[in-house]
Amino acid sequence: MAAASAPGKVILFGEHAVVSGTPALGSAVDLRATAEIVEAPGSLLVEVSDLNLTVEGFSVDLLTGDIKSSFAADAMRSTRYVSAVLREFDARDLKVKISSQIPPGSGLGSSAAITVSTLAALSKHLGLDMSREDLAKSSHRIEKEMQKGLGSPMDTALSVFGGYQLVSRQVESVTLPPIELVVGYTRMPHDTWSEVQKVQSLRSAHPEVVDSIFRAIGAISKKAVVLLGEEKLPELGALMNVNHGLLDALGVNTRELSELIYAARGAGGVLGAKLTGAGGGGCMVALPGDRSIEAIVTAIRQARGIAFKVRTGCEGVRLEPCSRS
Amino acid sequence: MAAASAPGKVILFGEHAVVSGTPALGSAVDLRATAEIVEAPGSLLVEVSDLNLTVEGFSVDLLTGDIKSSFAADAMRSTRYVSAVLREFDARDLKVKISSQIPPGSGLGSSAAITVSTLAALSKHLGLDMSREDLAKSSHRIEKEMQKGLGSPMDTALSVFGGYQLVSRQVESVTLPPIELVVGYTRMPHDTWSEVQKVQSLRSAHPEVVDSIFRAIGAISKKAVVLLGEEKLPELGALMNVNHGLLDALGVNTRELSELIYAARGAGGVLGAKLTGAGGGGCMVALPGDRSIEAIVTAIRQARGIAFKVRTGCEGVRLEPCSRS
Repeated sequence: MAAASAPGKVILFGEHAVVSGTPALGSAVDLRATAEIVEAPGSLLVEVSDLNLTVEGFSVDLLTGDIKSSFAADAMRSTRYVSAVLREFDARDLKVKISSQIPPGSGLGSSAAITVSTLAALSKHLGLDMSREDLAKSSHRIEKEMQKGLGSPMDTALSVFGGYQLVSRQVESVTLPPIELVVGYTRMPHDTWSEVQKVQSLRSAHPEVVDSIFRAIGAISKKAVVLLGEEKLPELGALMNVNHGLLDALGVNTRELSELIYAARGAGGVLGAKLTGAGGGGCMVALPGDRSIEAIVTAIRQARGIAFKVRTGCEGVRLEPCSRS
Repeated sequence: MAAASAPGKVILFGEHAVVSGTPALGSAVDLRATAEIVEAPGSLLVEVSDLNLTVEGFSVDLLTGDIKSSFAADAMRSTRYVSAVLREFDARDLKVKISSQIPPGSGLGSSAAITVSTLAALSKHLGLDMSREDLAKSSHRIEKEMQKGLGSPMDTALSVFGGYQLVSRQVESVTLPPIELVVGYTRMPHDTWSEVQKVQSLRSAHPEVVDSIFRAIGAISKKAVVLLGEEKLPELGALMNVNHGLLDALGVNTRELSELIYAARGAGGVLGAKLTGAGGGGCMVALPGDRSIEAIVTAIRQARGIAFKVRTGCEGVRLEPCSRS
């Protein structure tokens, strides 16, 4: 028996421009996925609960393919990552109990957190004692295999190491103060791959336009690291708004994201708001000013989004005590 | 007695980036303002009607300051331009009857069309026979005086010469085919001056970000002229979407503009949509594909905007027959 938890993430600045070599800034947040490995002779079972959404929980028997209880197709995907980890170690005779606070398909790093926590728990269970670097490498390789070769190292690095990470071709930890954010989920799942394709085809058609946009995004990411380090939050918020417009120019904004963003901006005291991640659905993120968090949460819910208060810069993967069941 | 009419305009590409020297592309549209000069011994009267809005019409006695009938504050501004033209020529003993299809304060060039048509009618009435070049120069000077020294020559040039104009430091006529557009008015008047200030202060804070955005907008304007010349409308529409995102990044988009734009984009067959002009309110413009005009008009109206079908590349200022009244 063993258990581990790992955090989800938000991308704060620099989405998509990453392909041109400019770093994107991401942070681990205090929404976590927990994986618990329990001995179960003769079976290989994945049990999923608490996906912080409309999902009630379900279980899948990977030997027979048997699905117990109802489930949302989206949440179902999470078992694919667990299954990939188990295959990696040829694991048998056990049950993996996944419980996650991260809505799947929302761009908040649900699959990375599930992969990393499962890997860490399994490593402990099998007595492998993998280092954080090993966990980061393995989980990134697994994510990449599952995501048509795409998979930036951002999600798994944040899930393993926590804190803030600057990601371009490499991954670099940066020490920055934690902040509070409000994340708004559109309830629209998105497909990172198709959003990346969309931007690539715009770039092929109009390289001089898109490269200027990437340069502007790159300049914002650089400044943002400095401003966040100095805790100049109003200036940081203003750059979130500019970055959002640039993502809109790249064609990855949607009506639903825009509605949540304007709802948040309409709440008194908000410092800035932008879509986070690949776009085409998923989440937006708002930076609250003094005592404006509740107003932003309310505004996002009124606009029919799902609102989460999150804290950035949180701890990466860690072992957890096993439940008594 | 004399009468003249002059067209309103839309800016198709390149707003705001103009300050960095890249040209913006504007077009005269088939919404016109008409000015009629009637002898009226002992008085100096401006009568305004049909502002294509919520305005019922009103009249102002410039000698006594007497206002007859109710009016919207916005529409009232139009008399200031007429008054400035009359002052220019020390005109007396006459009545100017303005009738306009262009909503005032919407960014569709209402004040330029009123200024130019009044100037042309007065020139005819006084037997001055001003050339088009004279009309363009005088009307631009008057607009500039009225608009805190801002006033790009775009509006008055389009109102005088019609067609399409590329405007940067100079004004250049370009021959391009007419197209049909749907304009959506948010009913939110805007202040060009404050939007220009907003962009300038963003540029001072983050020159490397804003200059990259201006370069992207400049590249779009250049491509747009070529694509419109070749009547490649789907490609042109895609660039409208990109240009809109860049204007959003500059901070001149609004919730209301965004709602009309997403409404238009949600209508089947639309090729692209963007805000037009300074932003901060005013209008958006959508490029319809085959047989999609009515769907776009409906979508904009459903989103509580005022929709106009317009045709670009229209005739500039022209003399009109006087009414019989």
